[in-house]
Amino acid sequence: MTARRWRLDLGYDGAAFSGWAAQPDRRTVQGVLTEAITRVLRLPDPVQLVVAGRTDSGVHARGQVAHVDLPADTSADALMHRLARVLPDDVAVHRVIPAAPGFDARFSAVWRRYTYRLWDDASRPDPLLRRHVTLVRDHLDIERMHVAARTLVGLHDFAAFCKPRDAATTIRTVQWIGVSRAGDAAGTVEVGLRADAFCHSMVRAVVGALVAVGADRRSDRWLAEVLSSPVRHSQVIVLPPHGLCLEEVGYPPDDQLAARAAEARAVRTLPIPTPHPPSDQDHA
Amino acid sequence: MTARRWRLDLGYDGAAFSGWAAQPDRRTVQGVLTEAITRVLRLPDPVQLVVAGRTDSGVHARGQVAHVDLPADTSADALMHRLARVLPDDVAVHRVIPAAPGFDARFSAVWRRYTYRLWDDASRPDPLLRRHVTLVRDHLDIERMHVAARTLVGLHDFAAFCKPRDAATTIRTVQWIGVSRAGDAAGTVEVGLRADAFCHSMVRAVVGALVAVGADRRSDRWLAEVLSSPVRHSQVIVLPPHGLCLEEVGYPPDDQLAARAAEARAVRTLPIPTPHPPSDQDHA
Repeated sequence: MTARRWRLDLGYDGAAFSGWAAQPDRRTVQGVLTEAITRVLRLPDPVQLVVAGRTDSGVHARGQVAHVDLPADTSADALMHRLARVLPDDVAVHRVIPAAPGFDARFSAVWRRYTYRLWDDASRPDPLLRRHVTLVRDHLDIERMHVAARTLVGLHDFAAFCKPRDAATTIRTVQWIGVSRAGDAAGTVEVGLRADAFCHSMVRAVVGALVAVGADRRSDRWLAEVLSSPVRHSQVIVLPPHGLCLEEVGYPPDDQLAARAAEARAVRTLPIPTPHPPSDQDHA
Repeated sequence: MTARRWRLDLGYDGAAFSGWAAQPDRRTVQGVLTEAITRVLRLPDPVQLVVAGRTDSGVHARGQVAHVDLPADTSADALMHRLARVLPDDVAVHRVIPAAPGFDARFSAVWRRYTYRLWDDASRPDPLLRRHVTLVRDHLDIERMHVAARTLVGLHDFAAFCKPRDAATTIRTVQWIGVSRAGDAAGTVEVGLRADAFCHSMVRAVVGALVAVGADRRSDRWLAEVLSSPVRHSQVIVLPPHGLCLEEVGYPPDDQLAARAAEARAVRTLPIPTPHPPSDQDHA
């Protein structure tokens, strides 16, 4: 039977998952979802899910996007309703639609947007948010963090902020960083980041560095020095995963999906040569 | 030693509490907080906490207000920091300040504002919100709920929506009801209610009735008929507690605190006599 590609929009509470990527003997989002789809459609072999952002252990997602190739006669509505019945309540598939031609959840994406949530009030975090915010001991100077963040925007080698991986470039284009206080809870500071892709642990390390500046423990100049480091920087603290959430993934118009996927698969390089071999990491 | 009155602003995740009010052998917010304050201040007798909204089992609070009389030499900062160390992470005291003369957390309050959160998308609720939203099977017509809610605004006997209690009036003034879709999550519908006070289970029953209208299972006329019922109405469904949160409590300017407290302690009556004896319930 011919296969058809479907786009899945989903979210999960990362607390009880060892991240997205399937691993033997670990509870992962990919593992749970693969098992559920394969079972409700009574397929002979496990489906192959491809995701936009392969989140780490404990990281949440609200706007994750995946694709999967399924038999052409699959009913999207039936699949969604059956999944709602069998999936545990810490993962939800919000939408199942036919993918446009050329769509690849990972390689067609032009950006990923993450939010890291911090709590810097003297008191304990709002109990309703406690599983999704990270407590910071110092009061944060939001304006200072916002200004410092400008140093990081643009095309850079983010090796200083990344867990090294074999055969993986750490060159990325950060398109936007926004720092703001959330209106509904006094102590909540949200750091939003958008980039073409993120390397492993990058968001949590970048926010850790911005917190150091916002708490007046480090200067703007220090941040620039860190950024220029060709290897992981020892003074950068990687914040815990529970404050991080993949909020949204951006795709180009349908007629550019295939071209974008081909482009993203190609080598990412800086204008000047670097010692890093090319790759396509998009972890956070 | 002379005592001084303090105002506490606090929040809690209601999931693991049997409500606010202390009960023997039950974990309650009042019980946990009383024990913690008494212990960190090394007081000989348990402190007496008075709260603005005595929330039911499972109901959350983000803007709860309490008062407590403590020895005059108590340091608010020290108390807050010690509480942050000893309190469990599902309750947080965000602020401790000296209460203005005449302040009574319960009787000085001029309004309580609650939000009930619903999820009406075909899929399962956003996993990050699942503990604080109630899943509704039908798609909700927000505009229709908003219009129907007007029937309920004003001074009415809300007996139809209240769990009967001995010696308790069910006459309340609902000042505002707002129904809206929350921007950040596709399926989230928020129903906000503000009243001078609420009788027992009233918010959850009112929202249950509005959901019946929004889902086209009941008419506006039905809602008016329900409201006119002098006793609890059998067709009204009381929604589960985990969707409900006490968001904010309103107080008058400091120079009116004492007068307001005296007024609230007095009998609440409709312009016409009712068979209900007076009381001062403010449950939800």
